[in-house]
Amino acid sequence: MDRQFPALSCSMDGSADQDRISLAHGEGARASRRLLLEFILPRLHASRRQAEVGNHPSEKDSIGAIIQDAAEIVTNQRQLAFCTDSHTITPLFFPGGDLGSLAIFGTVNDLAVSGAVPRWISLSLILEEGLKLSVLGAILDSCALAASQCQVEIVTGDTKVVPRGAVDAIFLNTSGIGEFYETPPPGPSSIQVGDRIIVSSSIGRHGTAVLGLRNGLKWSSGFCSDCRTVFPAIRALRSGLPSGIRCMRDATRGGVGAVLQEWARECQLSLQLNDSAIPVSAEVRGACELFGIDPLYLANEGTFVAVVAAEVASQAVGAIQKCPGFEDAAEIGDVHPRGISPVTISRIGGRIRPLDEPTGAPLPRIC
Amino acid sequence: MDRQFPALSCSMDGSADQDRISLAHGEGARASRRLLLEFILPRLHASRRQAEVGNHPSEKDSIGAIIQDAAEIVTNQRQLAFCTDSHTITPLFFPGGDLGSLAIFGTVNDLAVSGAVPRWISLSLILEEGLKLSVLGAILDSCALAASQCQVEIVTGDTKVVPRGAVDAIFLNTSGIGEFYETPPPGPSSIQVGDRIIVSSSIGRHGTAVLGLRNGLKWSSGFCSDCRTVFPAIRALRSGLPSGIRCMRDATRGGVGAVLQEWARECQLSLQLNDSAIPVSAEVRGACELFGIDPLYLANEGTFVAVVAAEVASQAVGAIQKCPGFEDAAEIGDVHPRGISPVTISRIGGRIRPLDEPTGAPLPRIC
Repeated sequence: MDRQFPALSCSMDGSADQDRISLAHGEGARASRRLLLEFILPRLHASRRQAEVGNHPSEKDSIGAIIQDAAEIVTNQRQLAFCTDSHTITPLFFPGGDLGSLAIFGTVNDLAVSGAVPRWISLSLILEEGLKLSVLGAILDSCALAASQCQVEIVTGDTKVVPRGAVDAIFLNTSGIGEFYETPPPGPSSIQVGDRIIVSSSIGRHGTAVLGLRNGLKWSSGFCSDCRTVFPAIRALRSGLPSGIRCMRDATRGGVGAVLQEWARECQLSLQLNDSAIPVSAEVRGACELFGIDPLYLANEGTFVAVVAAEVASQAVGAIQKCPGFEDAAEIGDVHPRGISPVTISRIGGRIRPLDEPTGAPLPRIC
Repeated sequence: MDRQFPALSCSMDGSADQDRISLAHGEGARASRRLLLEFILPRLHASRRQAEVGNHPSEKDSIGAIIQDAAEIVTNQRQLAFCTDSHTITPLFFPGGDLGSLAIFGTVNDLAVSGAVPRWISLSLILEEGLKLSVLGAILDSCALAASQCQVEIVTGDTKVVPRGAVDAIFLNTSGIGEFYETPPPGPSSIQVGDRIIVSSSIGRHGTAVLGLRNGLKWSSGFCSDCRTVFPAIRALRSGLPSGIRCMRDATRGGVGAVLQEWARECQLSLQLNDSAIPVSAEVRGACELFGIDPLYLANEGTFVAVVAAEVASQAVGAIQKCPGFEDAAEIGDVHPRGISPVTISRIGGRIRPLDEPTGAPLPRIC
């Protein structure tokens, strides 16, 4: 899959480079078709063979569908989840992932935390004229591998090419459809006083990895994004816990803090965190001190938060911890009547303080 | 809906402008939430009230879903269509439409030509720091109006903000889900010798409108995009014609010519056009002569091509013509055994020549 496709070059504008995207690749004619048939689809196709997913349309149908205007999908469920995300991360490659894996896992995770089983993904590419084919190829390979790991199918897509300067290298959009086999959790408005807040794994790893990379910290320093699917952990949680889950959310942009602020607003209660219970790796803690950032507001890409009934909390944490990669799941707080602030945190010393929403420097293009 | 939202300004970076998008609007925290709740959702919500679509989730649920990670949709059909498109058109506003209406109609049309009834749409925004809120507002209003006209619901979305220079103003992605109530047409591999090629309306209007605008031609000169839904015409065609439709496609990027080239390749026959039968308005014909472009390769945004069995061709054209706005539907050619070229055209004088794929100047960002 790593071979070059020099035949894809297009000399029609006189300046085309053998190994780069040209405007002609976006024109809907010959060069577009060759890019799709000879470069994009073989990469996506290769992984589909590995996926061996059950009652999905055949490979042939799916590949055909990507060339058609719309894919045909067949479901046995009346209730479906539907979500979308555009991905603009920079740099494109970071410790633990890249734009491609991030796009697939991000959409898979949105479906998973809604309570659905992720099934079908659309992949839309916006490419800058001059983008190296080797970069596009690596990102597509990564999409394919991630989709294969998640047992989802990339069934439809779109490619646009814009002139130099109209987009920074490459943006992806992934939309996804999932099937509800069980009733989804009721949502944050069902949160009750006494409920427990749990987090699936140590927090802030994606944000730290990107922040570190942008600021020239060495990859060898242990920073690694948590970019991955949370679906196995969600499945473990739900099958181990027939009831008592109020809500789940993957804590991406804005981190665990943003999710809790939103939930507190919806349930009109106070979510209280126990600082010492929050799993944060030594590397992330060090980077946060260096940059003066609260790990609660750093992005994650493979970590979710949930609120569960008190009586099932330890069972919930145990179920998640059994899932490889989620061993440091923890109960990190509980729910109180609305007090001084929507979200509070008890720091060392026992004093309870409001957890303010961040007003510091923004961290654009983290996902 | 035209009022300004000065309260949305965010002074956290010290340079924020009251009427512009700032990076903080993309951070997933307070400013993001306010942009979504106070600016984006009210605009999308307003049109949903007008839509009065049948058995869809309630307004409240849909608005909630846009804030959640995924929307929940309920379908009675096992067979669904799923498609995606990113939209990068420049300029953002053109005679007959804008980025917002184009994005909705484009996805609705992809679903319609696949044979499905368009139902649910996702809307993902990529915004450049500094984008005027008035521009964003006008585009969102246009999305809402188009969705209302098409009786589809925008049920889920995403907003990303990237720093100045990382994207040109605003790109949209729309993905869509449609329901198959009837068996879809079998597709281009079912095309047979003797079949007829029909087009739903006069061609090249979108491409000419954008080309004219970019080159400083006056809006008053009669150029107007065909940006609209083709679903009513498809419905009229299909209900008037229980069988005999081989395939349908909306002729966007690459125009009618690109669709026919692709179909000819799939069916391994020759598609032969009758030049004098192709509906082209005087304005489009004039512009094409001015710019030296074949209208067959100009983009359309509300025009589809179909191949039908010979015995139903006039009935098919008649059914489409009865639909307002599609009065100039026409039979434009027929299907022959594979001869000199995949697509041929009989120009004035009766000589049949190959219709080459364009190798001229590309027309980027037409959709």
